[in-house]
Amino acid sequence: MESTRTRVLVHGASGRMGRALLRLIAADASLELAAAVTGSGAHDLGDVVQLPASRLEDAPDFDVVVDFSLPAGFDAVLALCRQRGRPLVSGTTGLSDAQREALDRAGHELPILWSANFSLGVTVLAELVRRAAAALPGWDCDIVESHHVNKRDAPSGTALMLGESVEAGRGRPPAYASLRAGDIVGEHLVQLASAGERLELVHRATDREIFARGALHAARWIAGETPGRYAMKDCLGLD
Amino acid sequence: MESTRTRVLVHGASGRMGRALLRLIAADASLELAAAVTGSGAHDLGDVVQLPASRLEDAPDFDVVVDFSLPAGFDAVLALCRQRGRPLVSGTTGLSDAQREALDRAGHELPILWSANFSLGVTVLAELVRRAAAALPGWDCDIVESHHVNKRDAPSGTALMLGESVEAGRGRPPAYASLRAGDIVGEHLVQLASAGERLELVHRATDREIFARGALHAARWIAGETPGRYAMKDCLGLD
Amino acid sequence: MESTRTRVLVHGASGRMGRALLRLIAADASLELAAAVTGSGAHDLGDVVQLPASRLEDAPDFDVVVDFSLPAGFDAVLALCRQRGRPLVSGTTGLSDAQREALDRAGHELPILWSANFSLGVTVLAELVRRAAAALPGWDCDIVESHHVNKRDAPSGTALMLGESVEAGRGRPPAYASLRAGDIVGEHLVQLASAGERLELVHRATDREIFARGALHAARWIAGETPGRYAMKDCLGLD
Amino acid sequence: MESTRTRVLVHGASGRMGRALLRLIAADASLELAAAVTGSGAHDLGDVVQLPASRLEDAPDFDVVVDFSLPAGFDAVLALCRQRGRPLVSGTTGLSDAQREALDRAGHELPILWSANFSLGVTVLAELVRRAAAALPGWDCDIVESHHVNKRDAPSGTALMLGESVEAGRGRPPAYASLRAGDIVGEHLVQLASAGERLELVHRATDREIFARGALHAARWIAGETPGRYAMKDCLGLD
Repeated sequence: MESTRTRVLVHGASGRMGRALLRLIAADASLELAAAVTGSGAHDLGDVVQLPASRLEDAPDFDVVVDFSLPAGFDAVLALCRQRGRPLVSGTTGLSDAQREALDRAGHELPILWSANFSLGVTVLAELVRRAAAALPGWDCDIVESHHVNKRDAPSGTALMLGESVEAGRGRPPAYASLRAGDIVGEHLVQLASAGERLELVHRATDREIFARGALHAARWIAGETPGRYAMKDCLGLD
Repeated sequence: MESTRTRVLVHGASGRMGRALLRLIAADASLELAAAVTGSGAHDLGDVVQLPASRLEDAPDFDVVVDFSLPAGFDAVLALCRQRGRPLVSGTTGLSDAQREALDRAGHELPILWSANFSLGVTVLAELVRRAAAALPGWDCDIVESHHVNKRDAPSGTALMLGESVEAGRGRPPAYASLRAGDIVGEHLVQLASAGERLELVHRATDREIFARGALHAARWIAGETPGRYAMKDCLGLD
Repeated sequence: MESTRTRVLVHGASGRMGRALLRLIAADASLELAAAVTGSGAHDLGDVVQLPASRLEDAPDFDVVVDFSLPAGFDAVLALCRQRGRPLVSGTTGLSDAQREALDRAGHELPILWSANFSLGVTVLAELVRRAAAALPGWDCDIVESHHVNKRDAPSGTALMLGESVEAGRGRPPAYASLRAGDIVGEHLVQLASAGERLELVHRATDREIFARGALHAARWIAGETPGRYAMKDCLGLD
Repeated sequence: MESTRTRVLVHGASGRMGRALLRLIAADASLELAAAVTGSGAHDLGDVVQLPASRLEDAPDFDVVVDFSLPAGFDAVLALCRQRGRPLVSGTTGLSDAQREALDRAGHELPILWSANFSLGVTVLAELVRRAAAALPGWDCDIVESHHVNKRDAPSGTALMLGESVEAGRGRPPAYASLRAGDIVGEHLVQLASAGERLELVHRATDREIFARGALHAARWIAGETPGRYAMKDCLGLD
């Protein structure tokens, strides 16, 4: 039944994430593309309802916005959500302090979920790591992350985020090691070791599409939520 | 200061677990051996206060009993705990229904912790697995366990227990695979997989002494608790 | 300089492997596409020199044929190689006994390399496994393979091939376990275990393009070889 | 039959390695202890033929010497082997240049095997790594080693030795990472990665006794060899 599908407006549809979102929405019977909003509207996105950002107010009706764009266009898409009373899932990075405060305020009116990492597996891993580190505070902890050779920063942002989970759990940060090899999409090992036994908690990503999958998982979930500021762990029922 | 040590009565002191307990207590400044109780009292346990089970009522004062013995002697050690008002940590297997009911009743008067597996790492893993399976109910789940070539049963009891955690979390059991190789003490991998990403949650045991360590961890903790029936996860602050 | 490039005729250009070959040749400065041969010639392969199989004799000059097609067209492509005196790399499966014998005979005139698996990593792993099993004949050996949930056969063909390496090395086959989870492209673990130590030899494939990469590695190598029947391990200098 | 046993003289019998050697010889029907030589002869080694180093020349007949002692006693044990015409297996470290040259000269008369690491698994791994690195010279290579928290040096000597195997194979050294956690006996991962695929070659040691086992494996083998300087890989039939 058409009406049970979640209608998604994709903001930032011409970027890598945007294109992955369009692909996955087209292949998912529970979702429907309301509109694909791009900076200029001149992109070749195939057979979809496309809208330039300059005409955002003309958007057709939708159930949720998924936004992976740039800070410059962020105020307009948040305004659209508030005007239509629809929830927002956003992974746009580089937001200003004022924009972050606007997100917080909007959370009083609308369901809002912003995240730096939409992988469901990483979200679960961070929560597991926090709990394991809290339960085993005296154990040694190491984080090893592996990525493709073109990744410059080390440790990865995800490794540092997992390290914060460790520190939140046991009060001390872990040691880090970084490998750069081949075209590895991203692997993270959190090891907790004591005398005679060890836990190894590993996430392996083999396809960057998992971030788009996770964002659509969040979109499906948030369409039925009450106003509030949410994180990825909320849409997985963690805590 | 002597009085801050937890005084442990070891029941079943001549078995493999009992001997490991005596070794660890001797090396641990926070613990003190109150007495080592054996079936006949004729064992060579070195320089410790030793007591035959037949004279259990003569035991010196203690803070907690740690029991790894046989069902035949279980009623007597539970009676001793009730008489002295002291907590019991027990890993004795093969208890009768009546003995299990007696444990439940004793939980109203005393702190009681019985467990089939005293590894801290396995205890944490079971909890992580339950949460991960609940958060990711649609992911595929496999459990691979590896043990030494002399282990007959497969899957291992721990693998089945982790499988129950999976099923409690997502409503469906996992698939199992068992490897028997070398002198592997025990390894368990719980893998959760979806499109493009995967979680691997692993416990590796390299020394059977971890079970005695875990039992003493429980003993230290339960000495300060109120009456109740406890599990290993309680002494790690899980849930 | 144009003349230093290896000119490749791709036979079976419209299949999954064929398309991957065209993509990789276009991106590789050391290779040049001589022609893309397809069954009917009616495929949309973009801007390449395309030829229907019915006009194979009209093929422009080339240095090597890479063939991933069907048994029905195999005789014609082998005839072309013999007529032009050029080497053949083939991964076509399902060849008849007569076709296999024809390959053997052609190996007296031309360099011929046929393989069931063109992954460089798997080729190396098979050789390592053979040597390790021969050096450690008394160790326990297990092979664990993981693939996506749609793979029906188990153990995988690659696992059985690695098992033959084990058996060639130590005279006894290994035990096998198979996991089917998510969209795993293919992972193979060969474990050799003894008292107190263990070797784990693992291959992880994350992209099916590795088979096309390996075939082109073989094509580059075989263009400079003398007549003979070769295997993938030859083009890696193994033994 | 008594005469088929290899009679081993253990030199350095009171050290950790020496005691492990005595334990394993007593449990192995293919070996027989000829004598246990210690510095002073005053050690409690149980029910064995014990000899102080000062009376080495009085040693009963033996088939092979296994020596894990100190440089100070090395000249005497090498002289004994030359006098009796018996092979020597030695893991004594810190030898002087003169002592190393004496070993080389003795190799013209006797079978001599000196090694820094007697683990069979590490010996095989080093050989596999050399071959894999030679076959895949363009692949990225990382070595990750894990040891107990009391190990001071990093990378481990074994990691550096494996790194030399990598460099011998492909002409460039690998990157290294070191983890220090729990009571890990020793783990080494050599990873070779390219686009879309990866090899992981791992050795896990869980018991330090593997070094004594490997030395006795070498002793059994060398008892039937002709004069020469041998390495551990020779007794495993590698190259």
